[in-house]
Amino acid sequence: MHLIESNDNKHFKELKKLKEKKYRKQLGLYIIEGLRFVEEAVKADAAIDEIIIDEAKQERFEDICLKVNDDKITLLKSSLFNQLSGTENSQGIIAVIKIGCSENNYKGSFYVLLDKLQDPGNVGTIIRTAHAAAVDGIIVRDGTVDIYNDKTLRSTMGSIFYTNIIEDKNLEVVQKFKEDGFKLLASSLDTDFNYYEVDLSDKIILVVGNEGNGVSDEIYKLCDLKAKIPMPGNAESLNASVAASIMIYEKVRQNLCK
Amino acid sequence: MHLIESNDNKHFKELKKLKEKKYRKQLGLYIIEGLRFVEEAVKADAAIDEIIIDEAKQERFEDICLKVNDDKITLLKSSLFNQLSGTENSQGIIAVIKIGCSENNYKGSFYVLLDKLQDPGNVGTIIRTAHAAAVDGIIVRDGTVDIYNDKTLRSTMGSIFYTNIIEDKNLEVVQKFKEDGFKLLASSLDTDFNYYEVDLSDKIILVVGNEGNGVSDEIYKLCDLKAKIPMPGNAESLNASVAASIMIYEKVRQNLCK
Repeated sequence: MHLIESNDNKHFKELKKLKEKKYRKQLGLYIIEGLRFVEEAVKADAAIDEIIIDEAKQERFEDICLKVNDDKITLLKSSLFNQLSGTENSQGIIAVIKIGCSENNYKGSFYVLLDKLQDPGNVGTIIRTAHAAAVDGIIVRDGTVDIYNDKTLRSTMGSIFYTNIIEDKNLEVVQKFKEDGFKLLASSLDTDFNYYEVDLSDKIILVVGNEGNGVSDEIYKLCDLKAKIPMPGNAESLNASVAASIMIYEKVRQNLCK
Repeated sequence: MHLIESNDNKHFKELKKLKEKKYRKQLGLYIIEGLRFVEEAVKADAAIDEIIIDEAKQERFEDICLKVNDDKITLLKSSLFNQLSGTENSQGIIAVIKIGCSENNYKGSFYVLLDKLQDPGNVGTIIRTAHAAAVDGIIVRDGTVDIYNDKTLRSTMGSIFYTNIIEDKNLEVVQKFKEDGFKLLASSLDTDFNYYEVDLSDKIILVVGNEGNGVSDEIYKLCDLKAKIPMPGNAESLNASVAASIMIYEKVRQNLCK
């Protein structure tokens, strides 16, 4: 356990960088905040790089500190902690987590592809549903909102620690999966088949499109299956995380009904 | 069309009150903001009481003004409009809508009961799904977040204008529905039946519980049916609007598969 008191401290400056997407990517680290979230990370055996505590609130966190190697705990003077915190009335605890390495994580038969989604809440909620449904991984296309921003992470409610995240530049990952026999499934109104009529027992990648524009043209061209979520009430569309969750749970239903 | 320029104008003071839940209820009115939302209200033939336009941006809204009775249009000096607006860079248009009267609106066989939900985004998203799924109405229990606050309304994406909302104090409405033969269905882990195994062809009220605490004790006691959303991935829970949407769409699936 060591204490940082100066704004000029080199390690403190590095920590502050983690508030920006660019540096999170470069350093392979992200931050989570709040006791419950940090406890979830410990429980999930997430790759905790460091735990950072507001020196003035240290005694609140005695229990959790006992569960972590003492070398991994950093105390910050309150004025420094507040620069790092994303909330106004911070509880006083933050953890720095290593971004999972996705090598060799291509197992299983059911993936979800995020095709340029923009809303952090939607992305976090989809990760939460995917975790509940035992989805094998989330493929994140370039142009999708950063998974590791504060709002997305909070919306996952801790499911981030249990989810296999694979980033995909230039659709290389999608192509690789397709060569491996995966079929791309998009929700579309341009088909006669309702989502519960499509056989989902193959290796499937479920595509979730952007909130305003839907599935992108590049991905739509690659799709093997299309399925419609019927809307007898004639609404224009469903919320993206809701549509994704309905499709994900159809796969769960079909698996369990076999 | 008339112009209000003074802060002391009586009508302007009334309008400002609509930012508070208490007065929305008392006056039976709520406000929506932004051109797309107001256009949706016109398209849906919602009970528009008044359209309010920032005088400085008047020419932007010529098209929509043609569709509304001239008496119903009020221009506000920009400094006044900004006091009413909920956003920093307002488009310059607001509509005042009458809260629907729910008398005689007890038709149909499928309702959703909001049991003290607290998140405006969740409530708005559930209304959006309910509209898509042609749910007959939403019963809102006392203690649920206000349907007519800005964030809930935005999350409905216009579905608010197509939804039969019934407020329920003291569970009187729920009791009336039960006497009418409706069965209350709660999602619960305390049952062996998965949601897709429960026959939903009866008259059903689907209960959606609070985000943190689930279904309240009072409602749970009244429930006739319990159904589990299985979580093979062992997450702790699903987002409330996701869980509600999965159950709502199971009813859609069963209806269409009959």
